[in-house]
This record gives sequence, structure tokens and C-alpha cells, in this order.
Amino acid sequence: MDTDYVAEILKGSPRAISRVISWLENDDPRASGCMEKIYPHTGRAYILGITGSPGSGKSSLTDKLTQKLRSQGLTVGIVAVDPTSPFTGGAILGDRVRMGDIAMDPGVFIRSMATRGYLGGLAQATSNAVKILDAAGKDIILIETVGVGQDEVDIIRIADTVCLVLVPGLGDVIQSMKAGVMEIADVYVINKSDRPGADQLCAEVTHRVAQDVEIRARQWPPPVVQTVATENEGIDEMADAIQAHRSYLEQSNRLIDKRRERTRDETLQMIHYELFRAIKAYLSRDHRMDQLVSDIMERRENPYRLMHRMLKNYLRLPESDISLNAD
Amino acid sequence: MDTDYVAEILKGSPRAISRVISWLENDDPRASGCMEKIYPHTGRAYILGITGSPGSGKSSLTDKLTQKLRSQGLTVGIVAVDPTSPFTGGAILGDRVRMGDIAMDPGVFIRSMATRGYLGGLAQATSNAVKILDAAGKDIILIETVGVGQDEVDIIRIADTVCLVLVPGLGDVIQSMKAGVMEIADVYVINKSDRPGADQLCAEVTHRVAQDVEIRARQWPPPVVQTVATENEGIDEMADAIQAHRSYLEQSNRLIDKRRERTRDETLQMIHYELFRAIKAYLSRDHRMDQLVSDIMERRENPYRLMHRMLKNYLRLPESDISLNAD
Repeated sequence: MDTDYVAEILKGSPRAISRVISWLENDDPRASGCMEKIYPHTGRAYILGITGSPGSGKSSLTDKLTQKLRSQGLTVGIVAVDPTSPFTGGAILGDRVRMGDIAMDPGVFIRSMATRGYLGGLAQATSNAVKILDAAGKDIILIETVGVGQDEVDIIRIADTVCLVLVPGLGDVIQSMKAGVMEIADVYVINKSDRPGADQLCAEVTHRVAQDVEIRARQWPPPVVQTVATENEGIDEMADAIQAHRSYLEQSNRLIDKRRERTRDETLQMIHYELFRAIKAYLSRDHRMDQLVSDIMERRENPYRLMHRMLKNYLRLPESDISLNAD
Repeated sequence: MDTDYVAEILKGSPRAISRVISWLENDDPRASGCMEKIYPHTGRAYILGITGSPGSGKSSLTDKLTQKLRSQGLTVGIVAVDPTSPFTGGAILGDRVRMGDIAMDPGVFIRSMATRGYLGGLAQATSNAVKILDAAGKDIILIETVGVGQDEVDIIRIADTVCLVLVPGLGDVIQSMKAGVMEIADVYVINKSDRPGADQLCAEVTHRVAQDVEIRARQWPPPVVQTVATENEGIDEMADAIQAHRSYLEQSNRLIDKRRERTRDETLQMIHYELFRAIKAYLSRDHRMDQLVSDIMERRENPYRLMHRMLKNYLRLPESDISLNAD
């Protein structure tokens, strides 16, 4: 008889959590059924995002912050989607040893996500992993991701509070700005603040934040915190800044708005993905796709025109739809 | 009267090329019509990908390789999708001056792509930009991108020949392996080969390549080339290696296979994107989506169940389909 993985997850079983996340990673059909059953038990955890360039010390910060949260009696789930993270890379780089303290703590669950191969996108897989940890009863879920590229921005948007980690001398302020990460940070963390240039970087970030029209339009002026994660310095201040942001979100009802927006995005993404999956399966039958590709290659068919024709023929969006409560 | 941008692009007008790429970036509805008209004129250019970590000197290599290709009488289009590239970052970093030689050459068209905000994905936008340059008559199209993340791997797959740039002392071999870039390189370039450790890195890459089962299964043993781009050293060898790979692809019919695969992926991606757009537009009408999100938030609706219901109700995939030649 099969284990009831959903019941096990709700009891917090690390084995069941790992198993279902692996199903998500492998696009195993059993994942979908589990997610459907898990969904009603989600929405309780608080989600933190920690992002920054490779070498910014995100993992050390995650480690120390987790110890701090544990000392407050909170349970923690960590989802590392950073290919440069020692959590993710432990198996190759042998760095997992550094995470010894929290890795042995039963109140902490650490999971690294492969950063490629998800048919529905990495952000959706991460979101599902977060939901599993949420249903498993973790109080805080920490997503660690490298701050480069659209993928990562999509992932970090899952978080209620986003911490952007910057380091003196890496020139990552400009890169973060370009990647669009600068604007979505709720807390700026200047890590390795014992290095030369930390005060200058702190001043630069404070200045930029003060000048940014988009950031200024919000009610929350993002604080800039200085840390030296390896020395456990500034971790209390970082935890306080996160807590302050959380209180702000809760008291201003912004948390509900934020989660509503996230639910909207995720739902659209899911529908999108499943529809595409169905169409792709359809086109793969009877060599339909092979024939189409040959026609396109030989310029007998135009892919842009084809696309519009398919859309017209394959999609049935009723004016009045009994399957939606909206009508 | 509107300019006929398609006719202008076919004549190679830089202004028309820029305009239509901007439409792509801004998701302007005019882009789609142009792409449809441009498509029959594509397929002639050879596409090179140059990828590597920030700081590996990709842009200097691109610059010097472009000069080499120009000396052979070839015209070159450059699409930079690297947020750390001086092509892309010129406006902020003031590095564009370094690209003075090729930037003033009318046989070279340089375009940087914003790395976020594309509804259809950065890879699709890049692919469309490449098609525009192809239709505009450029012989070689060079895509420069940073080798991190799924986005970049998707982008680099557009190329016929992929050059992976590595640098002694950056430890980027392991990162490239993780990002899945190592396996898709056709030519390895060890840049900054005047630095200590170059020979060792060269030996390491040669060793890894020789050991990789997947790479060994192919007919093409990827060469490892040493360069010092800033001194114009090794550029001839790099160009020769690229030419050798091109000859191999053409003579073995692998080029056709590769492009067939790319056409398949791109066509599916386009359908994917347009489908999403249509569904999103539909759900946004009459506050359907707002109501759905409220129901999901309050756990009256389960997004996973909803998704399957929509799939059943919205898709019409005929057994026999007159719109497809396959039937």
C-alpha cells in the first residue's frame, strides 16, 4: 500500500516533503494530485526571500538568520534555488559542512532545487515547494536565490519580505538595478561590512533608495542594515528589520494585497502551463509537429500566421462560463 | 504615411532594425505583423553565441572577433543580452567607448537587449531580434550573453555555434557545469591566457571534455582555444575553430537538424506565449479573475482543481484538423 504522502506532509515528515518535491522536480504526475490536496492547508507561513550576487554571503546570512529564528522558537524551511549556494552545491563543493549547525536541527528543513529542467518554470516549482513546507507547518520559509535574471526576479516575488544582500567592492548595486532586483527589496543588507567601502556602499544605497521615485511612492522606506554574517554581527538588526516590515505589511493590510497579487500570478501561470502541456501533447501525436516544422523550415508555412490560426481553432473561451463563479 | 519598416529592414536600414526591435521590447502589437512578413527572408545568417561569466572578457572577444570577420568581408550583427556587457551597459558604465572601432563600422550593427520585461520571454525576444538582423542581410549574427541561469541557456541554444569563455582563477568551470552551459559549448575559449593558471585551466577543460560521456557521444570533439582578447592574441585560432565547427555542421547535415530543433522549440514557445496572452485577456474581462482570486484566497476554490476544469472546458483539440497540413 502506498504511503499517504499528503497526511505525512501535514505531520511534517521530512521524508514525505522530500519525496513530493522530487516529484515536482521530475514532473511526476503524482505531484499535481498532492498539490491539490495540500493547497487548503497553505497560507500560514511567512515567506522570506534572500537574494544577492554570488559571493555576497547569502548562505552564511541564511544560516545565521535561521539560528536567530530558531532561538525565537520558530521552525524554518529553506528552499535554495541558487546554483552557487553551498546548500545547492554542497554535494559538489563540499560546503554543506559549513551549514552543520542548522542542517542537524530537526526544526529546520533544507531543500535545494535543481535550477533547470522544470517544464512549468522554476518559479512555479519553487512556489509549490514553498507550499509544501507551509502545509508541513514551517513558521518561516526562506527562499535563497541569486539576484540575476528574470527567473530569479520571478522567484523572489513569491516572498512576503525580500532582503537584497550587497557587498562592498562587487559593484553589484548597478547590476542589481539592471536586473530589477533593487526595486523589489524591502530590506537592504550590506554584508561583509568589515570590508573597506562598506560605509560608502551603505551611503550609496541609502541615497539611491531616497531618490527612487517608485520606492518613495510606497509607505515603507526600506532600511539598510550592515552585517558580517561570518561573525554573526548585525543579524539581530536584520531580523528586527524583517520583523518591522512584516508588522508594517500586516497592519497596513498590504500583506493581503501582496498575497492576492501572488495568487493571481500563480493561478495564471498554472493555467498557462497546463494548457500548453495539453497542446504540446496534442501536436506531438501522429507526427503533427514534425510535419509543421518541415513546412516552416521550407518556408511553406509561416510560424507567426500558424500561431494565430491555432489560437483561433483550439481555444474555446465561452462568453458565459458555468465553470467560473464569476458568471 | 507610415514607413514600410519591413522593406527598410530588408534593405538593411539600421533605423528600421532598431525601431522594430524596440517594438519587440515594448510588446508593441506592430512587432507581430512585421515578424510575420520578415520570416520568409530569414534562415541565411550564421548564428554565433558567446557566453561566459561576468569578467571573462566576452565583450573584448566579441569586439576582436567582429573585426576579424569584417576583415573577411562579412557583415556582422551583434545582439548583447548580457546585463554586465559594455554593449548593454555602455550608457551607464561609459564602456561603449572601448567598442569604438566596430561601433563606427557601417558593416556592423550592435543592439543591446533589456534583460527584463518581455512578456514572451527573453529568449523569444532575442530570437526575433536575430531574425530581424538575418533578414537585414547580416552574414554573421553574434549573441553575447552571460552564462548563468535558464534564461541564458535558452538564449544560447539559438546559436549554431556556441563559444564558452572561461578565465583562469574565476572558478567558473564548476559554475558553468551547473548552469548546463559546459555541455552545450562547441568551442571552449580560455581568455586572459596571459594570467597564471591558464595552462592548468586549459588542461582541466580538455580533461573534462574528454571524460564527459554526453560530449564524447557526439561527432564533434570541442576544441579548447587560448586567447588574450585585449592583445588580439588567439583570435585567428578562435575564428578558425568556429569555422571548423561550421564546416562540420554543414557537411554532416547537423546544421539542418539543429535548426529543425530550434524551429520546433520556437514555434512551441510562440504558441505557448500567445495562448497565455489570450487566456489572460479573457480572464481579465468582467472581473472574472478578481472573483477567482478571491475564491482561491478564501479557500472556496482550489487553483489546482480549477486549472483542470478550465483545461477541459477551454480547449478544443480536434481529432482531425483541417488547419494543419499533417492531417
